[in-house]
Amino acid sequence: MSPQLFSPGVQHTLELVGIFVFAISGALLAVRKNFDVFGMAVLAEVTALGGGLLRDVVIGAVPPVAFTDLGYFLTPLAATVLVFFLHPQVERIQTAVNVFDAAGLGLFCVGGTLKAYEYGLGLTASATLGMATAVGGGVLRDMLANEVPSLLRWDRDLYAVPAIVGSAMAAVFIKLDALTPATLGVAVMVAFVLRLLAMRFHWRAPRAWHRRSTVKEVATEDVLV
Amino acid sequence: MSPQLFSPGVQHTLELVGIFVFAISGALLAVRKNFDVFGMAVLAEVTALGGGLLRDVVIGAVPPVAFTDLGYFLTPLAATVLVFFLHPQVERIQTAVNVFDAAGLGLFCVGGTLKAYEYGLGLTASATLGMATAVGGGVLRDMLANEVPSLLRWDRDLYAVPAIVGSAMAAVFIKLDALTPATLGVAVMVAFVLRLLAMRFHWRAPRAWHRRSTVKEVATEDVLV
Amino acid sequence: MSPQLFSPGVQHTLELVGIFVFAISGALLAVRKNFDVFGMAVLAEVTALGGGLLRDVVIGAVPPVAFTDLGYFLTPLAATVLVFFLHPQVERIQTAVNVFDAAGLGLFCVGGTLKAYEYGLGLTASATLGMATAVGGGVLRDMLANEVPSLLRWDRDLYAVPAIVGSAMAAVFIKLDALTPATLGVAVMVAFVLRLLAMRFHWRAPRAWHRRSTVKEVATEDVLV
Repeated sequence: MSPQLFSPGVQHTLELVGIFVFAISGALLAVRKNFDVFGMAVLAEVTALGGGLLRDVVIGAVPPVAFTDLGYFLTPLAATVLVFFLHPQVERIQTAVNVFDAAGLGLFCVGGTLKAYEYGLGLTASATLGMATAVGGGVLRDMLANEVPSLLRWDRDLYAVPAIVGSAMAAVFIKLDALTPATLGVAVMVAFVLRLLAMRFHWRAPRAWHRRSTVKEVATEDVLV
Repeated sequence: MSPQLFSPGVQHTLELVGIFVFAISGALLAVRKNFDVFGMAVLAEVTALGGGLLRDVVIGAVPPVAFTDLGYFLTPLAATVLVFFLHPQVERIQTAVNVFDAAGLGLFCVGGTLKAYEYGLGLTASATLGMATAVGGGVLRDMLANEVPSLLRWDRDLYAVPAIVGSAMAAVFIKLDALTPATLGVAVMVAFVLRLLAMRFHWRAPRAWHRRSTVKEVATEDVLV
Repeated sequence: MSPQLFSPGVQHTLELVGIFVFAISGALLAVRKNFDVFGMAVLAEVTALGGGLLRDVVIGAVPPVAFTDLGYFLTPLAATVLVFFLHPQVERIQTAVNVFDAAGLGLFCVGGTLKAYEYGLGLTASATLGMATAVGGGVLRDMLANEVPSLLRWDRDLYAVPAIVGSAMAAVFIKLDALTPATLGVAVMVAFVLRLLAMRFHWRAPRAWHRRSTVKEVATEDVLV
């Protein structure tokens, strides 16, 4: 279904690895929220497949690949079983999980951009949907768990920016008619490395100017309807 | 629009009853959350129609049946009016409401599975969507009300498992080419009775192993990005 | 894509103004929630385009106009930049922002109704989707920010009712075959003025009867599953 960056077998394997680690982040959050095993499976599936599902519904690629590729559906269940029995051990290798998660981020932002472009969207829209493919599952995970999405919080290391860079690079390569496995691999790697650097050096995005000085006035004001 | 389990008239009546009690659970939550009458109507509509809406968008059955069958749209409004004027009385017959809710659960998980299969999905995907049809509205209700979804909480009686069993049975009957009103009725009844038993005996799903021992480490850790 | 109320240029300009002020309400909420600049952009985009996105996915108008009209996508980013640098000043002109927001509400509820009808929905469904077009972005904004949607809270001035009235008037004009720029302009103005009056006189919708007397019983009861 999705465009070929590498040989079909290699790409499918990489995608399943990405889905697996996304699912682990969902299942781990479910454990922390004290959900039962079924809640773990739901959160794992949503985290792993939610971004692609959003993209497919938006571009009209229905039924979405999440419902047509059985491997996509079963992989999060495998992650759920692993976390169910071994979650303290999985927590302990958090760093390794994060590295794989960064790889998934790179892979999905580029793959999502290509698929949206294939379905006739413009370059800006394709890059936006590529980014949404990569980060959408995590946002849905946090919404289901009744948490403020990590993605939006200023006290988290940059997550969306590496995805935007990867998606934008893919769009530029499409524009330049330079779509080869090599250039796409570069886009994936750049997103991957940027995310690793963001985690290593705790890169964060700025908040609005003068925030501090307005805290009091904010506290007493109503939220806009 | 949706597959016939029973005679058309009987099935449509049953569906409207299911929609009505789902809507009541939405309107009651709105009362507890101190929403106004409009919030009650929104929560009633979303609870009653949200699961089918999700299914229809995913399988490409647009416009969704929620927007083409006027009875589907008006029934939750009737439930809203009832709860608006008589919610203490409705709270008092909670047990009766729960029994009808269980019937709706059985009906929608089987009906959802058949409709997804009709639209060309595989058996596993159809059963998953059947389950999502039955439980999706309740999840959207809780998300809108800014609550942790009941469905995911370990301290709630089993709700999804009866739906999974009903959906899976419907999928098996499709596979075996044994799709008759009788077999489908059995699948609906099994889901219905399982849910009643889960409420009666407070059946719950397990949480991850060793949870207790890791509470401290969880409390001090950041949520995965 | 969307039906012409006025001359194409005028209508497009009005829509961009509506999108701009919806986006400002999203970006301001992001500032209050302490999100970073990226979270501001996400909340601005979702608030401004979310309602139309929902409508387009439901009626099968994919890819949604939010992804095909670059102006729709860039306008919320401009609003984000403005709020990022000048949010105390923007807070101070809250009243002006609210007036434009009311104008956006009127415009989108009528435009959404017409578009849904064009895609073959019935009058009731079209009016419902028109209302959802106008208020859906704000609901998604609040859900993403992990807040109870303003729309549902009893202590907010009426917001949905003006949209319902505008949508219903548009549906009636369709029914009467009286669809002219003048009649549509009247529907937009009625919704706009109703919203202004609701803000001026703090009109609110009632909550369920006897709420007060049942507060104690509510506090000790479980939420319906």
